[in-house]
Order: sequence, then C-alpha cells, then structure tokens
Amino acid sequence: MRRLHLGAFMRPVSIHTGAWRYPGAARDANFNFPLLKRFIQRLEAAKFDAFFMADHLAVLNMPVAALKRSHTVTSFEPFTLLSALAGATERIGLVATASTTFDEPYHIARRFASLDHISGGRAGWNIVTTANPDAALNFGYDDEIDHDERYARAREFYDVVTGLWDSFADDAFIRDAETGIYFDPAKLRVLDHKGKYLSVRGPLNIARPAQGWPVIVQAGASKAGRALAGATAEVIFAAESSIERAQAFHADIRRRMTENGRDPELLRVLPAAFVVVGDTVEEAKAKRAHLDSLVHYDSGIHSLSGMLGHDVSGYDPDGPLPEIPPTNASQSARERIVELALRENLTIRELAARAGSYSGLAFVGTPQTIADQMQEWLEARASDGFNIMFPWLPGGLDDFVDRVVPELQRRGIFRREYEGSTLRDHLGLPRPANHFFS
Amino acid sequence: MRRLHLGAFMRPVSIHTGAWRYPGAARDANFNFPLLKRFIQRLEAAKFDAFFMADHLAVLNMPVAALKRSHTVTSFEPFTLLSALAGATERIGLVATASTTFDEPYHIARRFASLDHISGGRAGWNIVTTANPDAALNFGYDDEIDHDERYARAREFYDVVTGLWDSFADDAFIRDAETGIYFDPAKLRVLDHKGKYLSVRGPLNIARPAQGWPVIVQAGASKAGRALAGATAEVIFAAESSIERAQAFHADIRRRMTENGRDPELLRVLPAAFVVVGDTVEEAKAKRAHLDSLVHYDSGIHSLSGMLGHDVSGYDPDGPLPEIPPTNASQSARERIVELALRENLTIRELAARAGSYSGLAFVGTPQTIADQMQEWLEARASDGFNIMFPWLPGGLDDFVDRVVPELQRRGIFRREYEGSTLRDHLGLPRPANHFFS
Ligand SMILES: Cc1cc2nc3c(=O)[nH]c(=O)nc-3n(C[C@H](O)[C@H](O)[C@H](O)COP(=O)(O)O)c2cc1C
Ligand SMILES: Cc1cc2nc3c(=O)[nH]c(=O)nc-3n(C[C@H](O)[C@H](O)[C@H](O)COP(=O)(O)O)c2cc1C
Repeated sequence: MRRLHLGAFMRPVSIHTGAWRYPGAARDANFNFPLLKRFIQRLEAAKFDAFFMADHLAVLNMPVAALKRSHTVTSFEPFTLLSALAGATERIGLVATASTTFDEPYHIARRFASLDHISGGRAGWNIVTTANPDAALNFGYDDEIDHDERYARAREFYDVVTGLWDSFADDAFIRDAETGIYFDPAKLRVLDHKGKYLSVRGPLNIARPAQGWPVIVQAGASKAGRALAGATAEVIFAAESSIERAQAFHADIRRRMTENGRDPELLRVLPAAFVVVGDTVEEAKAKRAHLDSLVHYDSGIHSLSGMLGHDVSGYDPDGPLPEIPPTNASQSARERIVELALRENLTIRELAARAGSYSGLAFVGTPQTIADQMQEWLEARASDGFNIMFPWLPGGLDDFVDRVVPELQRRGIFRREYEGSTLRDHLGLPRPANHFFS
Repeated sequence: MRRLHLGAFMRPVSIHTGAWRYPGAARDANFNFPLLKRFIQRLEAAKFDAFFMADHLAVLNMPVAALKRSHTVTSFEPFTLLSALAGATERIGLVATASTTFDEPYHIARRFASLDHISGGRAGWNIVTTANPDAALNFGYDDEIDHDERYARAREFYDVVTGLWDSFADDAFIRDAETGIYFDPAKLRVLDHKGKYLSVRGPLNIARPAQGWPVIVQAGASKAGRALAGATAEVIFAAESSIERAQAFHADIRRRMTENGRDPELLRVLPAAFVVVGDTVEEAKAKRAHLDSLVHYDSGIHSLSGMLGHDVSGYDPDGPLPEIPPTNASQSARERIVELALRENLTIRELAARAGSYSGLAFVGTPQTIADQMQEWLEARASDGFNIMFPWLPGGLDDFVDRVVPELQRRGIFRREYEGSTLRDHLGLPRPANHFFS
C-alpha cells in the first residue's frame, strides 16, 4: 500500500496570524528555542519525514496597523535553528528555505553540506526566489527584482550549487598518515563556472554531502516556478486546494520532468494542509472560527485587499463581497478568494479573517474525517502526503500527533518506525550520482 | 589579581598541517561532529571563555603538491557548527568568523542574532576581510579585492550590522493576547542605511540579540586593520610573538580607541599561542620537532617561499637561509622568519617545517614553564589571556586541559567556575546600549 509522507510546516510556528492569541497557545513559540526543541522531538517521536523551516528575508510587508499584530515579525534564521535542532534529534529531516536571489551559491552549497554532514544526511533545501519586494531593499537593491529574472538566476544557481557539492568524489579523502596524503587530488574537481548570472570557481571547501545532495524542494506555482520544479525538484509543496487541481498540477510537473530527462516517479508531492482537530466536526469548525476571530480586522482587510488587488476596506464588513473590477493582481489568488466566498457564503469580515490567516487547503474535523480526506488524496494520487500547518502551538501540534497520526498508522498509511536514517531514505529518493566522478 | 581569559582557536582543529599525522591524533578531527562535541564539552568543563571558529571562503591556495597533504581543506561552516555545538553546551562562548567582503550585512546580523538567542548570549563575531585571493573567485570577482577597499567596506558593514541589531528596543515585544498587540511599533526602528558600499533598509526580522550585540573580535594587523580594531574591537587576537611588540601593538589599539571616543579599558587582548606540553621542556621540544617533521617538504617550502616573497626551493634544504633580495611581499612575515632562523639557528628544511606549520608565538614546555610564561605576559599587561592553538587533537587539547589549566587555577590566574552566563560576562565586557532606544 502507498503511504503518506508528512512534513511539519513551521514558520517556525503557525502561519495563522491569530495563533499566538489562541487560549493555551505559547505566545512566543516562534522565538523560544527550548519550546521548538520539544516540538521537533514530538514530531520525531511521531515519525514525521521532516521539519520544514520557511524563511523571509525581511519583516513581512504590511502596514504597521497589521504588522504590530503579527507574531511572524521575528524568527530564527533557518541554518542556526536547524543546526541547533539537529543536535536534539536523530532521524527527522531538516528542510531549510534558502533564497537564490539574495544569497551566494558558495555559501548556500557550503551550509547545506555542513547541515547534511552534522545531521547525518537529513538536510533538504527549499529553493525560493523570494517574492517579498521589501527583501530587495535589505540587499542593496532600490526596487524588487523581476520575477522571470529571479527564476533564470535560480536555475543557474542550482547548477552551481549541485556542481559545488560534487567538488570531491565520495572517496576522495584517504587520510593516510603513513604517506602523508590527506586526499587524492585526482578526486577533486574545480567547477570553474562562468554563466549569465554567476561566476564561481570552486572547489567547495567541504566534503560531498552525506546524501550526495540534500533533497531539493520547491514551491513555485507560476510558469517559471513550474519550469524550475520540472528541472530540479524532488519534493514539491504545492498550494493547490482541490484534488482535481492538484492532479493537474502534478501531471504538469511530471511532464516537465520527463522533458528534462528526469524520472517522473522520483517526485514527492506534499501540499501544505492546515489541520484543525476536534471531537466532532462541529467542534473543529468552532475552533477554527474562534481562531479566525482572533485576526484583527485591520490585518485581515489589508490581506484581503492585497489578494483581490482592490481596496475593499470601504465596504460593509458584514455584507457579502461585491463584484470587483478586474485588475492585474495575481489571478489565482483572486479566483481562490472569490470561490471561497461563494462556497462558504462568507461576509467580508469572515473573508478578511481567512485572508489574514490562511485561505488554502484545510482539513477541519475529527481524526477520522481528517484521515479519510488524507487517504482520499493519497488514493487519488493527488499527493504523496502533506506538509502539515498546525493552527496554534502546542495544542494544534499535540492534537495532530496524539490523535491523527495513530489513526493514519492504524490504517496502514503512515509509518510506525523509521526504516532508514536519511531524509532521502524517508522519502524513498535515491542518492544522486556525482556529476564528475562515478 | 588579574586573571587570564582563554579562547580555544579551532580551525576547527590544529592550525598545524602535520597535526593529523601525529601518533594518536584523530585524522578527521576537523570533520567529525561527535568528536568536536566532545572537544567543546572538555573546554567548557575547563572553564574556557570561548570556542573560536576560524573561517576561510575557499580551499586554501597552495599548489596541489602541498594541498593534498593538508587537513584544512575541508571543514564545517561556522554557523552550522557553532549552532549545533550551542545545543551541546551551556556556558562557553561561541565565536564565529564572518567576512565583511563576501557576505551581506542583513545575513550576518541575522545569523549572529540567532546564534546569540539560541545560545543564551554566547555569540561573538570575529570580523575578517578575507585575504585569500581565491575566495574572490568563488564570489563572482575576477581578481582579489584591494586591501584598503576591503577595510573601508568592513567599517561601513559594522555600522550596518550593529544598526540592524538595534532594530527593536529590548522591550519591544509585548505579546498582549487580550488587545492583540504583538509588539509596540514605537519601539521598531527602520535603519534606512545608504552608504558608499552598502544600502540596507531594515529592520532586522529578529529581536535584539541577548547580549545587545554579540562580542566584536578582530585580528587585522595592518594599519587599516588596526584602525578598524580601534573603532570596533572588544577582543583582539593579535599575532605578536614578543611581550614588547605586544605591548606596543595594544598601546596603539588603545590609543585609537580613545581617539574614537571609546573606553580603552574595554579591550581584551588574546594573542594566539601554540602550546605543546611535556613532562620536561626537552620532551615538549621533542614533541614539537616530531610534529614539525610530519609537514612534508613540498608544503613547507611553498609556505616559506610565500612568507619570504622569494622562491627558495632551489637552495640546499640542509643549509642556512641565504641573504634574500628585497621584494614587495609582507615585510612583517619576512622579518619574522629571518629573525626566527637566526634565533633558533634553523636550516631551510627546519624553517620550511615551521613556515608550513606555525611560526608564531609558542609556549613549549612543562605545565609550570607554560604557566610561568603566561603569567609573565599577564603581569606585563602584554595580554589579557590567550587564544590557545592545540598542536594536535585530542592529545594536545587533553594536555592543556588536564595539566596546564589546573596549574593556572592553582596560581589564581584562571577561573575555577564561570561567574556569569554570557560571553560578555566571561570577558567582563558591558552590554552595549541600543543606538536608537534607551
Ligand atoms: C507551502 C509553501 C511554502 C512556501 N514557503 C516560502 C518561504 O518560506 N519563503 C519564501 O520566500 N517563499 C515561500 N513560498 C513561496 C513560493 O516559493 C513561491 O514564490 C510562490 O508559491 C509563488 O510562486 P512563483 O514564485 O512561481 O510565482 C512558499 C509557498 C508555498 C506554497
Ligand atoms: C589569530 C588569528 C586568527 C585569524 N583568523 C582568520 C580567519 O579565520 N579567517 C580569515 O579570513 N582571516 C583570519 N585571520 C587574518 C586576519 O583577519 C588578518 O587578515 C590578518 O591578520 C592580516 O591583517 P590585515 O588584514 O590587517 O592585513 C586571523 C589572524 C590571526 C592573527
């Protein structure tokens, strides 16, 4: 039987901006190292594939009225956090987000190689091109960087990073004290890359990563994003919220993999899913409604206007969403919101709460109904698992680990024990061959 | 009584290129995480002030004949290593080297802030401008970057990093679940830096570091390096090898501190010192000679020629150093070697072994003679302690911890217990005020 793969999407805590206000929630959970250590140890005991650390290279761009209400304003840098957590765990994968737009491939290659060695082969790289325009201002630019340029650089960046990882053959280090030869120079390769965006000589000053290459993860949804995934991704964190759309999306990525000469079976699709657990479906829905009510209207209306590409702060909060004139904002975000408003018959105030918190795929119900839905996605091959977003910490994480995981295990669709020791082992992905040495 | 401060200079292991070949040495010590964890735990039990991680952004530039014999070719990246070690320790300081030439201030500020928070206030930043010309080639440059330009950028970089650390007031985070206010926007400052080399808006997306600012460390010796130290350094790792020179060097830095409006008492001077311990002075000298003999002639002669600025590979290895024609290589390195050759009456082969291993300040003797020398430096105010270089691992570290530290403690010139919990506490340095908030 096929089984689910589960990641924990930590931002480092809930993506929901009301999370820190929920009764019993740790208010400083995104910035409390001992607590994060306990969270990852619970996830490892539940046999999660990976702990996934999102990343943003700026304070999120919101007006101050919304920003001052957001717990996401401060978080740890992914490599420092995941390296510290590596020492507190033994098996769970550690996926760090790193930007190809605002960093250097030599640094990125070296840090992932270090994390992979220190953790015994548990590192993964979530490749992002960093859409937040405020990030550019923190890195010497006057303005945001063009979307397609970012993706063109990302593609070249990936080639450089994987080339640097392959600087040494796996068996380069002899360390023969007798003859005094530390490594075999025939097994060292100088990359000498000179491309459109990057010029990097190499070699990398660290041995090839334990996994050959850390696992490559990608979440871009645009045409350029999908092209990058087809060429590089082993895991995708799609944001599709229906089985049909997810199937179409993954078929597209698999087709692109084939075009790139890659085996389309070597892709793991883990859509992000927001999960709220209750004793009854009604209780779970009430929990979510309470959580959504903790998002301040100032935050929600700002996010909603952003997603619609149109300022809706002038309309009656308790009325329905009126017809919105066409704009050149993201069509997919806008369609998603309009669809949601119709499907759940939401007022502007309710929609604002969703927009300001989380408006994507959600499983809200009992352990049984949630397991049913996950199983349905798995059986329809709409996904290979999920990247779980906990609604608040620690309660939402505890509910998932204590109640949903045992139900998935009982059904035989989630592991009871780790079978291997690396993230590639957990995901069933092969160790890549070295570009330069066989 | 004044007391010594002790750092452990880890590269991550011995700077001596023969170290890995020494009988009983761990050959892979610079790349073995469980071993490094044991080393730092031993150093913490011995009450060292800090573990100091050097860094190089390229494979060291040597001809292959020398390179293949060097254990320094591969090491962990400092932030991943020190973050992982933070979780394995509680008190010892964690000093990471980071380059102002090949990195971005937003990244550096954020990583040090993360490490400082995760470790409970134990981070220090060794500011380097990265002299290795090969590093430039790994970061998009065709050629090395001019020395004084590197230092001018470093000075501005420091202003940006410290400014970013001060983005939030220490008491900015209210986290009032009732009113929904996470932080007080009046306590957030946007840096908006636009300078000659850097343009960085801010704010930093992490709270002010636990120590206010991580401790600032510097090792530059040139005029520009000393100017930077005078403006910024709280700890200097001088490379002076005599008491008189060290006194003159520190007087110069203290004078520069005064000129910069800084209190010259707030400087800790920790020269790097290579320490070899024996039961007798003769035994210690024999150990060092054995260690030096493990440096291959190909490596040594290359280093020696580099330091002299003149190819000496054509001369008789067992003869004395001949008169060398003047060149425009570093005068200080050259003088140091010529002086050493005369003082110890060394042949070219012996000099090559020193040049290829370590030719700076060394204490080679019994625990008593080593403690005598350290005490002499301390009492002459030539230093406030030392940054110890262990000749090989684990033996050289064990000898120091088991035999020299107790002798220093018996004399009352080294702590028996930590008195505080942060690196600033250990070094007796105050917490800096926030630039923008009092
Ligand atoms: C589940 C998920 C997680 C993401 N995490 C991050 C992140 O941590 N940092 C980031 O800059 N972007 C993140 N993104 C944004 C994507 O990388 C991508 O930019 C976005 O989906 C828009 O697609 P496009 O870049 O192809 O236009 C995430 C997206 C999804 C769906
Ligand atoms: C004890 C000590 C440790 C050093 N560690 C490093 C290091 O880890 N990385 C580096 O690039 N330079 C390192 N340096 C080099 C100095 O930063 C500096 O470049 C060198 O002393 C020459 O001085 P100058 O830069 O002022 O010319 C170190 C120097 C000393 C004395």
